[in-house]
Amino acid sequence: MKKRAKTKTKTKKVGTVYLVGAGPGDPKLMTLRGQELLSRADVIVYDYLANPSLLGFAKEGAEKVYVGKKGGSRSVLHQKKINGLMIEAAQAGRMVVRLKGGDPFIFGRGGEEAEALAGAMIPFEVVPGVTSAIGVPAYAGIPLTHREMASSVAFVTGHEDPAKGESHLDWKQLAGIDTLVFLMGMGNLSGIVDQLIRHGRSPKTPIALIQWGTYPFQKTSVGRLDNIVKKVASDGIRPPVVMVVGEVVGLRERLDWFESRPLFGRRILVTRSREQASEFAEILSSYGADAISFPTLQIVPPPSWRELDAAIHRIETYDWIIFTSGNGVRFFRERLKALDQDIRSLKGISLCAIGPATAAEIERWGLRVDLIPDEFKAEGILEKFGKKGIAGKRFLIPR
Amino acid sequence: MKKRAKTKTKTKKVGTVYLVGAGPGDPKLMTLRGQELLSRADVIVYDYLANPSLLGFAKEGAEKVYVGKKGGSRSVLHQKKINGLMIEAAQAGRMVVRLKGGDPFIFGRGGEEAEALAGAMIPFEVVPGVTSAIGVPAYAGIPLTHREMASSVAFVTGHEDPAKGESHLDWKQLAGIDTLVFLMGMGNLSGIVDQLIRHGRSPKTPIALIQWGTYPFQKTSVGRLDNIVKKVASDGIRPPVVMVVGEVVGLRERLDWFESRPLFGRRILVTRSREQASEFAEILSSYGADAISFPTLQIVPPPSWRELDAAIHRIETYDWIIFTSGNGVRFFRERLKALDQDIRSLKGISLCAIGPATAAEIERWGLRVDLIPDEFKAEGILEKFGKKGIAGKRFLIPR
Repeated sequence: MKKRAKTKTKTKKVGTVYLVGAGPGDPKLMTLRGQELLSRADVIVYDYLANPSLLGFAKEGAEKVYVGKKGGSRSVLHQKKINGLMIEAAQAGRMVVRLKGGDPFIFGRGGEEAEALAGAMIPFEVVPGVTSAIGVPAYAGIPLTHREMASSVAFVTGHEDPAKGESHLDWKQLAGIDTLVFLMGMGNLSGIVDQLIRHGRSPKTPIALIQWGTYPFQKTSVGRLDNIVKKVASDGIRPPVVMVVGEVVGLRERLDWFESRPLFGRRILVTRSREQASEFAEILSSYGADAISFPTLQIVPPPSWRELDAAIHRIETYDWIIFTSGNGVRFFRERLKALDQDIRSLKGISLCAIGPATAAEIERWGLRVDLIPDEFKAEGILEKFGKKGIAGKRFLIPR
Repeated sequence: MKKRAKTKTKTKKVGTVYLVGAGPGDPKLMTLRGQELLSRADVIVYDYLANPSLLGFAKEGAEKVYVGKKGGSRSVLHQKKINGLMIEAAQAGRMVVRLKGGDPFIFGRGGEEAEALAGAMIPFEVVPGVTSAIGVPAYAGIPLTHREMASSVAFVTGHEDPAKGESHLDWKQLAGIDTLVFLMGMGNLSGIVDQLIRHGRSPKTPIALIQWGTYPFQKTSVGRLDNIVKKVASDGIRPPVVMVVGEVVGLRERLDWFESRPLFGRRILVTRSREQASEFAEILSSYGADAISFPTLQIVPPPSWRELDAAIHRIETYDWIIFTSGNGVRFFRERLKALDQDIRSLKGISLCAIGPATAAEIERWGLRVDLIPDEFKAEGILEKFGKKGIAGKRFLIPR
């Protein structure tokens, strides 16, 4: 019997690896196929630019491996490790989803990963995603092609520093394409702008930089090639950024549907019963709010620490933290510590507690609570915040 | 009372128009957001290149308006009609989904439609989709960028005829981009190839044409700039086609995961109970079959005539028609007639009936039945067909 079991293990079927595009950020831009595979995967290997809330689709017990690096400059060694990890898991008969921001075959090294899998005789499939190069400009109100303005569009990785003179890019050719989209080019902005002007692009050409595109905290800076470097600095734009160059940027003025919605950038918690909640959340969403409905969330397992960790990394961008339970306070405190931060990171951020018990937990931590709503209903919270002025404010709600 | 009702109608809220990308064809490449909106829309305005099976997500009673034109060359007048249709529906307070093949902002005239909506003060949203320019090459095993081969990629509409000399495209610039993707360029293939070679691209540059990409009947032809025109003719490639030019095409040899699967191109009906069916269908799918599970389909309303009509338009590409009910036979006969075709269109196609009753209905129509399986189980069908040799054969299963 013992021997037989052993043989069975040895002849185990090799698992398939799915290279899945996670889309630009908004989790609803995930494909149906991608969601289905995420819910079945034994192992999920994911990047910095894949929205971690997508991990909520994972089945119970799925292993989630974070292999991203902020800034995006991954070493060859690091890539080899990722390949090895996928190959090993597949050889052990496990189903692997490799979740990559945007589309796996657009500057995502998906091609190289597929080659490694093919070389190791691991079956693989590619699930294309909405590339950030298209999805992010769309959320900024910028169509990349236009009958009168642009009949060609090129995507370029902005990783290479044009100033170094070792660029693989043919700037002379690039400068003549109607619309140019640079991914990950924030660090080389001034070099890119110089090259385009030097190769004949008008200094008045419109350019847009979109930070955290398709997320509720998307931020866009628009200028011309000759003033964008200063503009971006004064707007405080930081990576991750998608950059668009070309006349089509001018369309944003009329077509900006996303950032112009009245509740854009507000994260609102809806705790009504399932039926009421979805209706109310829908109304809020149609005004641009990031409406979170608790009953809906209960269908989906809670997201991993990733989401909270990502928020903590950008904690200075929030105006309010709304704690909805004592556990939430404890978890938040724990993660802050795990990320080598402490109470001082919360400087300047106001704190809201759902009720007296949660408030007590915050006070136990040595912090003052700025707001406790009279009754915890969406309307109540909105009203209470309304008095304090919430236009343009950002909220974090640790779960 | 009468007056009050009237007033209510007049102050009706204006509906929102959603410009939704349908993806390249595989319905599972639709986004979660797109599916959600389709299921809520009052009116769905859709194109030739949007997979009509997506209409299955529509709610009962939703109005479905087909505005596509085969060949893709839409007149300005036609576009104005589409804009008017959307604006009118929204003004009547209806929620409109404008379903466009691929991504709405990549050569989809989505920008122009958004401008028309903005001009008419109609609120709109853009839901990016997987563009065919990326999704189709991915299903042909072609990554558009690659660390060593391609650091830039450009998308170009192939609509313009370069031979006419009125091209808006700067071919000199285009020829220098590493990877070029032409959408809708089939008709101008020889002109495109000439221009690229004339502007310095090597005649040995690999090129691939992918017909009906991401569909189970995808077909790919690979060659070089100097021989592709002949190759495509002998391979019988016809629109809709996505064309890729560049060294990355060579990667297909190792990375073709889709067309190389053993059951690729086979449409298989699985009629087991829900639990068994999904498991079995999954196994079939993993081998590349287009496995259709009846219990799953029951969740979704049956697709409109569009899908069947599209199949009838390409009826000569099928080897088998499998009728699964007497109704199926009657519907099929009806649609054939509605499309001005008759029994003669079925020349050379073999017919299978699920059982004696369905066979009788086919015979009533004056046709001979080529196959009735002994028992209608997936295994039985497979076995029966297996004996007849099904490699590379295509099946139509009217529902």
